[in-house]
Amino acid sequence: MLVAAREFLDGEGFTELVAPVIGPVTDPGARGAKQVDVDYYGHRYKLMTSAILYKQAALAAFDRIFYIAPNVRLEPLETASTNRHLAEFHQIDVEMAGASREAIMQLAERLVGHVVRQVVAQLPGELASLGRDTSMFAELLSQPFGQRSHADAVADLRGQGHDQSPDAEIDWAGEAMLSRKASRPFFVTDYPKGSRGFYDRESRERPGFLRNFDLIAPEGYGELSSGSEREHDYATIVARIRETGENPAKYGWYLQMVREGIPDSAGFGIGLERFTRYVAGLDSVWQASAYPKVPGVALP
Amino acid sequence: MLVAAREFLDGEGFTELVAPVIGPVTDPGARGAKQVDVDYYGHRYKLMTSAILYKQAALAAFDRIFYIAPNVRLEPLETASTNRHLAEFHQIDVEMAGASREAIMQLAERLVGHVVRQVVAQLPGELASLGRDTSMFAELLSQPFGQRSHADAVADLRGQGHDQSPDAEIDWAGEAMLSRKASRPFFVTDYPKGSRGFYDRESRERPGFLRNFDLIAPEGYGELSSGSEREHDYATIVARIRETGENPAKYGWYLQMVREGIPDSAGFGIGLERFTRYVAGLDSVWQASAYPKVPGVALP
Repeated sequence: MLVAAREFLDGEGFTELVAPVIGPVTDPGARGAKQVDVDYYGHRYKLMTSAILYKQAALAAFDRIFYIAPNVRLEPLETASTNRHLAEFHQIDVEMAGASREAIMQLAERLVGHVVRQVVAQLPGELASLGRDTSMFAELLSQPFGQRSHADAVADLRGQGHDQSPDAEIDWAGEAMLSRKASRPFFVTDYPKGSRGFYDRESRERPGFLRNFDLIAPEGYGELSSGSEREHDYATIVARIRETGENPAKYGWYLQMVREGIPDSAGFGIGLERFTRYVAGLDSVWQASAYPKVPGVALP
Repeated sequence: MLVAAREFLDGEGFTELVAPVIGPVTDPGARGAKQVDVDYYGHRYKLMTSAILYKQAALAAFDRIFYIAPNVRLEPLETASTNRHLAEFHQIDVEMAGASREAIMQLAERLVGHVVRQVVAQLPGELASLGRDTSMFAELLSQPFGQRSHADAVADLRGQGHDQSPDAEIDWAGEAMLSRKASRPFFVTDYPKGSRGFYDRESRERPGFLRNFDLIAPEGYGELSSGSEREHDYATIVARIRETGENPAKYGWYLQMVREGIPDSAGFGIGLERFTRYVAGLDSVWQASAYPKVPGVALP
């Protein structure tokens, strides 16, 4: 799958960089997961929960970049039973200068399509031995992905008697319900401000809504990817950080860079192990990692 | 360089895996560098200083594997001025079941040769703009790398008045002296037991000497790679761990795996940023990283 992803992204003019593992600050928008501190020569550094801040920095050198980025998030203990959380995982992490949300969603759709097409064509024996029925990919490979707004997804869930908040991300149970009903991947767009990181750009036309998306796999496999247009205006970023209750001073190097000017961009991260789970039809995401870290479970 | 490395290793039948970032135990053989602890759900985990233990584990699934593995080592403050240490770096980390030291040295030589050849052929403009004279690679590309034993290198240094210990790795100043005198890369073999990690196999024919090597770049750029045949006998590994003063109980999952049986193997890790520094002719290794971490220097 990584060979196919690199082949596709290389063909689209993307340059692969290696991502950092630690740094003075990392992505705060990790949905209830705790960041991991490390003592770096007496300074408090963090393990990367995502590479988002560094993707924006990388656009200073290249217009189109990607990482295969390792991330560590101490997910809440209750996620050990969702079958889709690992405390250590990787993202196919893509960022593109000057791109709109629509352009980057289209890129994500084509990337996922290319990888699935290559696996189905090149690894029929492996898929058969895993018991994966490749006819499940027929819709994915023959028509565009679905698309609905967050508000529409919330209304659907509430109509089914599921108490989904209109102000938050879709909860695990709600996501599973939507995913099980679908027969092809679909995007959920326009999350409410406050439900996601400060770097997801707010719509100018519809204040309070973000120019972002999730990509949800069908058959109950749930979220594969999150993405967005990025905020790049210094004053807006500082205000957005303050709105989340964080101190902008934490983001020293990042804000200094933003003040000097960063490009307009959009991007996404695809969870490699979740994507593998979906393609291989695995019961749980831990089966897609050679050294799985199920939240809360430590090895002796 | 990574595109060329992957192309070469793929052609040799190697499968790329993604490496873990944290785990209950990591490589103890990191030459004076401190490991970084993380609190993993109340358990003390470590950031990977190298992927060696996991490379051996991966051979349970594939005979030939590699990672582009991120590593973190809190190097001593005095290494900030060697121009060849970073606290965060990557290795092209290769392991091959059933291989001898000679086979894996030959593989390392061909891998380095392929990458340099591709860079010289495909990026002449970039090398010129960096001021790198590609005639410096003439010997590398036209003849085998050099080879000498650790004992021979020690005698050479002592003959030049440098007080190199015969029982330890070549020190930074000694390594720089040997490297500056060379006009092509060369291997140093047969390090004394005690100078390296417990996983480097001891010679049966010459007890006290290891079946390992370093690969040193010419022109003063210094070490590019370390490698070895691996110890895979359970009792010998336990004894070797004890000899280093460590408690084998720390290595719980690893020793359990070894007891169940792991393949004979050999492998190496090439420091990606050091290799980049050499090829690009950079003054210091931090210039080969987009987010450099010079030992002891923390960002606000």
